[in-house]
Amino acid sequence: MLTKRVYLDWNATAPLRKEARAAVISALDVLGNPSSVHAEGRVARRLVENAREQVAMLVNAEPRNVLFTSGGTEANALALTPRAEGNARLLISPIEHVSVLAGGRFAASQIEQLTVLPNGQIDLGALDRRLTQSAETILVSVMLANNETGVVQPIAEIAELAHGAGATLHVDAVQGPGRISCDIIQLGADLLTISGHKFGAPKGVGALIRRETTVPLPNPLIRGGGQERSARAGTENVAGIAALGAAAAVLADTYVTESKKTLRLRQRLEGRLKREFPQAVIFGEGAARLPNTSLFAVPGIKAETAVIALDLEGVAVSSGAACSSGKVQASHVLAAMGVPEPLARGAIRVSLGPTTTESDVDRLIHAWIKVSDALLKGSKVAAA
Amino acid sequence: MLTKRVYLDWNATAPLRKEARAAVISALDVLGNPSSVHAEGRVARRLVENAREQVAMLVNAEPRNVLFTSGGTEANALALTPRAEGNARLLISPIEHVSVLAGGRFAASQIEQLTVLPNGQIDLGALDRRLTQSAETILVSVMLANNETGVVQPIAEIAELAHGAGATLHVDAVQGPGRISCDIIQLGADLLTISGHKFGAPKGVGALIRRETTVPLPNPLIRGGGQERSARAGTENVAGIAALGAAAAVLADTYVTESKKTLRLRQRLEGRLKREFPQAVIFGEGAARLPNTSLFAVPGIKAETAVIALDLEGVAVSSGAACSSGKVQASHVLAAMGVPEPLARGAIRVSLGPTTTESDVDRLIHAWIKVSDALLKGSKVAAA
Repeated sequence: MLTKRVYLDWNATAPLRKEARAAVISALDVLGNPSSVHAEGRVARRLVENAREQVAMLVNAEPRNVLFTSGGTEANALALTPRAEGNARLLISPIEHVSVLAGGRFAASQIEQLTVLPNGQIDLGALDRRLTQSAETILVSVMLANNETGVVQPIAEIAELAHGAGATLHVDAVQGPGRISCDIIQLGADLLTISGHKFGAPKGVGALIRRETTVPLPNPLIRGGGQERSARAGTENVAGIAALGAAAAVLADTYVTESKKTLRLRQRLEGRLKREFPQAVIFGEGAARLPNTSLFAVPGIKAETAVIALDLEGVAVSSGAACSSGKVQASHVLAAMGVPEPLARGAIRVSLGPTTTESDVDRLIHAWIKVSDALLKGSKVAAA
Repeated sequence: MLTKRVYLDWNATAPLRKEARAAVISALDVLGNPSSVHAEGRVARRLVENAREQVAMLVNAEPRNVLFTSGGTEANALALTPRAEGNARLLISPIEHVSVLAGGRFAASQIEQLTVLPNGQIDLGALDRRLTQSAETILVSVMLANNETGVVQPIAEIAELAHGAGATLHVDAVQGPGRISCDIIQLGADLLTISGHKFGAPKGVGALIRRETTVPLPNPLIRGGGQERSARAGTENVAGIAALGAAAAVLADTYVTESKKTLRLRQRLEGRLKREFPQAVIFGEGAARLPNTSLFAVPGIKAETAVIALDLEGVAVSSGAACSSGKVQASHVLAAMGVPEPLARGAIRVSLGPTTTESDVDRLIHAWIKVSDALLKGSKVAAA
């Protein structure tokens, strides 16, 4: 096929921003190890510290409270480590990313799942009861916005409940930057996870950010050298970190405009979808959602087959999180929202980005009509 | 200073190889998440799997036994995790890198240090006695070559002793690739750590390699998605991994020639050093050493001051490992070899690489004469 492909899977990974690309290339030519005392080392150190300031600004934190990691998964694993003096309990929502569901270094017996409402938001009443009934030291981990549905959690309220009960709050904000505010002070999160490749930096770099210095550093997951305030050993991914900083710096200026634009495109998408398929279900439609994400199902169509058929039509979308390495199972997110499994198995995630165009959305709709027509009729879809 | 700087700190980090640079740049433009099923995802997946083959070839392993990590430190931390059924003991040499000395997920009470001989090699007799006396499940971790002295350990013999006693052997081979053979079969290591930025790939990528599929996968350190055979979750650092593969592929063809060349340069360096400073001590001189590494001291000169003075002369060397983030303390490696602390505090590490020239070595010698003269007289060295 010679037609340009349409990439609508930004929640899986976003295209590299040109500023991040330039930062990688320029950092590649910086020779030193940031821990070396000589001139070469100091130049590398400066790149890392400059990026730390840029990332800090993105989330309204102090640079010294930014810990660079190899990505969101590692940042989540680092956040979810019981402190030396011990957190007795980890409360997580059932719609968290698998890297949070894994529970970090908490034993399975220490982990409890919260409940979510049918609209995809945390049941705050149940959370409050759980928190106030407990005499234990609790770490709560709730994501800012769900990677599948885009549903945004009321983090500030959750923070208030958590802090009122003496608990600590970790927020996996991987899907946030560039789409909604990730101001750690306004959110009230104690620890916040971000991942570079979701907003235009390369894959393999992320950060765990503390709201303030009084939030204890997590017990290190990777130990050795004194890098990252001894909370994360290992020679820094200097080029990746420089690019993370560069991408963060761009967002500060652009995200409000970009978000408005992607929201209009999503409205176009969902409007047309409903016109063509009145039976379509848009998940989390009643809740606050990321402007760029739409998770929907048309009863009778299996997502697994539809994603492949759309791919052959030149349109990249997904049937949920990318991280499950091709595993095909119904979404744990939709299950937690009470969506019946047959409908959940039809869920298609379309996620847009700042370079998505109206024509991309229209291509998707046309491809979807073609594909769903064939799939609903049960006929085979052949590669064009 | 307008003179070109001389970089002789390759054991801290090596310049990027042009093949690795090209691989990064080309991978940056690959959009997909390797776990996505669509065409974009499959292209990214191919880059990762191609690199896996290249890295496997470097160490004579099967591709499926290569696990990518964010670097040597993480690979060491991953290797040093007790298996589900439990390793009761971790035996490490006292000259290991700090990331191994940290002991991974073993409790301090489970870790025992071996002894080294004055030449920097492991005391095999003591190791053998320790192994045969034990009824516990043991993991032994010994580095292939020391990052400070360059002393190479008799890994094949250590492997034989370890396996004879039913123990597992992990080898931190971070300083090996490009300098000596890292054939995992010949070494007999069960698990082997490599780090990209020590041989021309970018910082922030490495691998833990299993000798064969029968060696159990380590208990994951970072959990979540199913990446890396579920042993290491998180979206892959695709550009870094592609570059790691590219650098590994270059070494296969070049390392024997490159090693011979750096060995000649080191001989030139050490010959001149001894001629100018007959009192100079070269550590580990009596043992097999990496061809590129020389750790020496001239009594009366403090390394800390000398490194800064040499830096001002345009020559980058180090006073030991870079990873200690500017901490100034006497080398634990030299302490384990029985070197008196005053002499150890004078240890300067010069580490060469394939692009080092005779003129670089001569620049170092001249700078060293100038600097040491001033330092020995106790006079201040001013920036030229």
